Amino acid sequence: MFRTAELGQKISKSEYAEREPVLRQELLDVQRRLREVSRFPVLILFAGVDGAGKGDTVNLLNEWMDTRWLMTRAYDMPSDEERERPEYWRYWRDLPPRGRIGLFLSSWYSRPLLDRVYEKIDEATLDARLDRILSLEKALADDGALILKFWMHLSRDAQKRRLKKLEKDPLKSWRVTQQDWEHWRIYDHFEAAAERIIMRTSTGTAPWSIVEGEDQHYRSLTVGTIIRDEITKRLDALSLEPAPMQGSEPVAPDADGETAPVESDLVSLKSATVLSMLDMSLHLGKSEYKKKLKQYQAELNLLHRKALAEKLSAILVFEGPDAGGKGGAIRRITAALDARHYQVIQIAAPTDEESAHHYLWRFWRHLSRAGRITIFDRSWYGRVLVERVEGFASDDEWRRAYAEINDFEEQLTDHGIVLLKYWMHITKDEQLERFKAREQVPHKRWKLTDEDWRNREKWEAYEYAAHDMVEHTSTHAAPWVLVEANNKPYARIKVLKTFCNSLEQALEARKK
Amino acid sequence: MFRTAELGQKISKSEYAEREPVLRQELLDVQRRLREVSRFPVLILFAGVDGAGKGDTVNLLNEWMDTRWLMTRAYDMPSDEERERPEYWRYWRDLPPRGRIGLFLSSWYSRPLLDRVYEKIDEATLDARLDRILSLEKALADDGALILKFWMHLSRDAQKRRLKKLEKDPLKSWRVTQQDWEHWRIYDHFEAAAERIIMRTSTGTAPWSIVEGEDQHYRSLTVGTIIRDEITKRLDALSLEPAPMQGSEPVAPDADGETAPVESDLVSLKSATVLSMLDMSLHLGKSEYKKKLKQYQAELNLLHRKALAEKLSAILVFEGPDAGGKGGAIRRITAALDARHYQVIQIAAPTDEESAHHYLWRFWRHLSRAGRITIFDRSWYGRVLVERVEGFASDDEWRRAYAEINDFEEQLTDHGIVLLKYWMHITKDEQLERFKAREQVPHKRWKLTDEDWRNREKWEAYEYAAHDMVEHTSTHAAPWVLVEANNKPYARIKVLKTFCNSLEQALEARKK
Repeated sequence: MFRTAELGQKISKSEYAEREPVLRQELLDVQRRLREVSRFPVLILFAGVDGAGKGDTVNLLNEWMDTRWLMTRAYDMPSDEERERPEYWRYWRDLPPRGRIGLFLSSWYSRPLLDRVYEKIDEATLDARLDRILSLEKALADDGALILKFWMHLSRDAQKRRLKKLEKDPLKSWRVTQQDWEHWRIYDHFEAAAERIIMRTSTGTAPWSIVEGEDQHYRSLTVGTIIRDEITKRLDALSLEPAPMQGSEPVAPDADGETAPVESDLVSLKSATVLSMLDMSLHLGKSEYKKKLKQYQAELNLLHRKALAEKLSAILVFEGPDAGGKGGAIRRITAALDARHYQVIQIAAPTDEESAHHYLWRFWRHLSRAGRITIFDRSWYGRVLVERVEGFASDDEWRRAYAEINDFEEQLTDHGIVLLKYWMHITKDEQLERFKAREQVPHKRWKLTDEDWRNREKWEAYEYAAHDMVEHTSTHAAPWVLVEANNKPYARIKVLKTFCNSLEQALEARKK
Repeated sequence: MFRTAELGQKISKSEYAEREPVLRQELLDVQRRLREVSRFPVLILFAGVDGAGKGDTVNLLNEWMDTRWLMTRAYDMPSDEERERPEYWRYWRDLPPRGRIGLFLSSWYSRPLLDRVYEKIDEATLDARLDRILSLEKALADDGALILKFWMHLSRDAQKRRLKKLEKDPLKSWRVTQQDWEHWRIYDHFEAAAERIIMRTSTGTAPWSIVEGEDQHYRSLTVGTIIRDEITKRLDALSLEPAPMQGSEPVAPDADGETAPVESDLVSLKSATVLSMLDMSLHLGKSEYKKKLKQYQAELNLLHRKALAEKLSAILVFEGPDAGGKGGAIRRITAALDARHYQVIQIAAPTDEESAHHYLWRFWRHLSRAGRITIFDRSWYGRVLVERVEGFASDDEWRRAYAEINDFEEQLTDHGIVLLKYWMHITKDEQLERFKAREQVPHKRWKLTDEDWRNREKWEAYEYAAHDMVEHTSTHAAPWVLVEANNKPYARIKVLKTFCNSLEQALEARKK
């Protein structure tokens, strides 16, 4: 989940100097519109790793924006006054009114996170606390509030660097506390708890944005840009609406099904995506490929016979650009299996019957009996990839799909199913080569359609959507395997090997 | 919560014979429209007490409606096929497509309820299971599904009568199983678990209707009428909307803020409401009143001093018709208290600042420090009373308010606050008397406004809204106290006495 925020995003000083005054002006404009319309409040929450710039960003926003209409609240241990009331009293009294923006630091996520990190509460109790948060955010969002949540992230190493750097600076060393170092020592605990929190509370109406926090220019512009875009989007949607009949009228977010453009400003801030960081030069020689192919196919055959006996099911998902080699990789897997025990599901446009149901229905129906392997050639991720980019799903639909998908996959993995998700990645140039090659070969020509060329034109939009998808749906229980697939032999072996490893681990775990 | 479904509702054979053919025709019409529009599926769930007519009602609906477009599903122990997949696979595969109706018996609520009743799971685990249900229903509702849930209720005595009656009938005795009697024996367990389930899962988009199940005519017409009205309402809302851009467009339920009329057909089916069943002749003589007043005020004074020392807070809510005697009762309480330790909050139209926030904000801000008593003269229940009846809140707003209020009150009671909610009830005639009396007395004339007379015209609508309110928000932790208030002395003593008892119990509980 956090891999997407460990890419070393950076914005140069000069680029920052160019962009910053523009963004500041735009934020002021947005704030003015928000105030004039005065139809909904904006809540902006900051949470994340110590040292990732939560406080700095809040300070900066106070510098950039008109503080008369901006409330900042940070929470420490509850006061006497607060302890004598229900826990959320302190938050309720600080909620911004319609037309204003509230910035919240260490707010309602803080205590559940730390209590879980320090193992004061178990997972079920954490979930119960998150339920309370979900109820609060739902009540506010139902009432029209715009809620933005930023998770400021640093990798373990980056956090260490950051704390060391702060300590060295005589003017800033006071900011590094003993607690910060304690947190750093239990980084893995912290990350696991954070993953669960983000997964459970990233809803369509109150989504988390994970922001890489190491470079202050990058994080500042990213946070500012998201705030600008989200408020603007909501204000624009309102101005399309007829005037409300009562003051308390709820503001339906994106209910008009308007398609979100891929946020080009946000894309342009990123010097890297989780895909662009892959080492696309990885490859495997022909003879080694043959040797390993034989080895892993034999291994897979054996493992699957064990899995069948153990009634251990597996589900494999393949996604990636056209001509990324999904079919080839799938055939190398199925070649090692008995046809009675697997099925490959090709996902294309839904049938009439399928489109008459919730979009997940068609995937539920394909779940196999125990011990089988089900391979999805394209999958439910279409919702947040092609449907998002092409505008087949509304903004609200694909945003809430992350939570729906995580919930669906949690049911699969809770049931003991091994779930692997492969992104078969190729570069844009490699795709062109492959398209051209297909045109040359008569028996492959049918594979290349006009749609493939059209999709290619939206390469960046798809890459950005894939980056977002990995951010929101790569979990410990159901990780994304990003496969460097410019070299087919390398890719196929990586797919086979990771599948064998996962099956083996799951079989081991059953023995215990 | 179930008191509203233990009133002995009855529909005569002749009235049934008159209404039934009309309703049948209307249901068929609605079904036809639903099919023609084919924009959303309808899920109808039945749960409740054994013998309350779940199965009979489903059979009847199959008789009444066009079974080609109606799916009925009942669930028993999972099959092999089902056990080999995640638990919800069986439900997903049975979901009705857009344009059709699915009737579900013993579905996703069944196992969590029984597991909790038999104490196989604790409350936290129950809540986690309910989360899964909430996610499912939310995903379906977000996708446009109309979800109706019926809780068929019988009181403990009524259930016994029903089971005995079935046993006597040679043609039906097979239907009474050992399990039915076992359930009857643990009725209280069953009721407590049911209350929690209904409270947690009655959402704005998938609300529970609690239906008294003893009289088959009443329950059949009530369920049929609700189904007819809810589908009609959704279809009407759609026809006001512009045509969708994609097939998968979400259908926002009631997002247009349309005001729901009080369902006059449903009202006319009820021979009683929870208010009409009160014994309004209860009264207290003058001398006894004086004696008891002195006694309970002294007791209250003592108890409150203990509560203050123990930091035990109390919140009292007063609602009821105009001239119901709220002010008088409140003064009899405050007379026993020290002014430094209580506050009376008069709730009238919200201030500018208050209307710029979520409607619960103004109540959160009035929560007192520990040990104090806060008395609300009218309260957050305005949302589901005056705002509902007068159309100040949209259909969707007041419906989701039940869950918001239950969540708010749970936070109060979880924090240890004693919460009592008084409904000061008078008859319509008594109100007229009191209005007239106020007109006569110069120093009371100001209390009577044009609005009071206007509200009086909507007496039935208010009574129905109050009945619904008690149904959805009277919980074990925060019950409604219905006060027979035609006789002021009786009412005031009942208010004082219940408050003393609650304080005493809470103080006792602290000692343990």
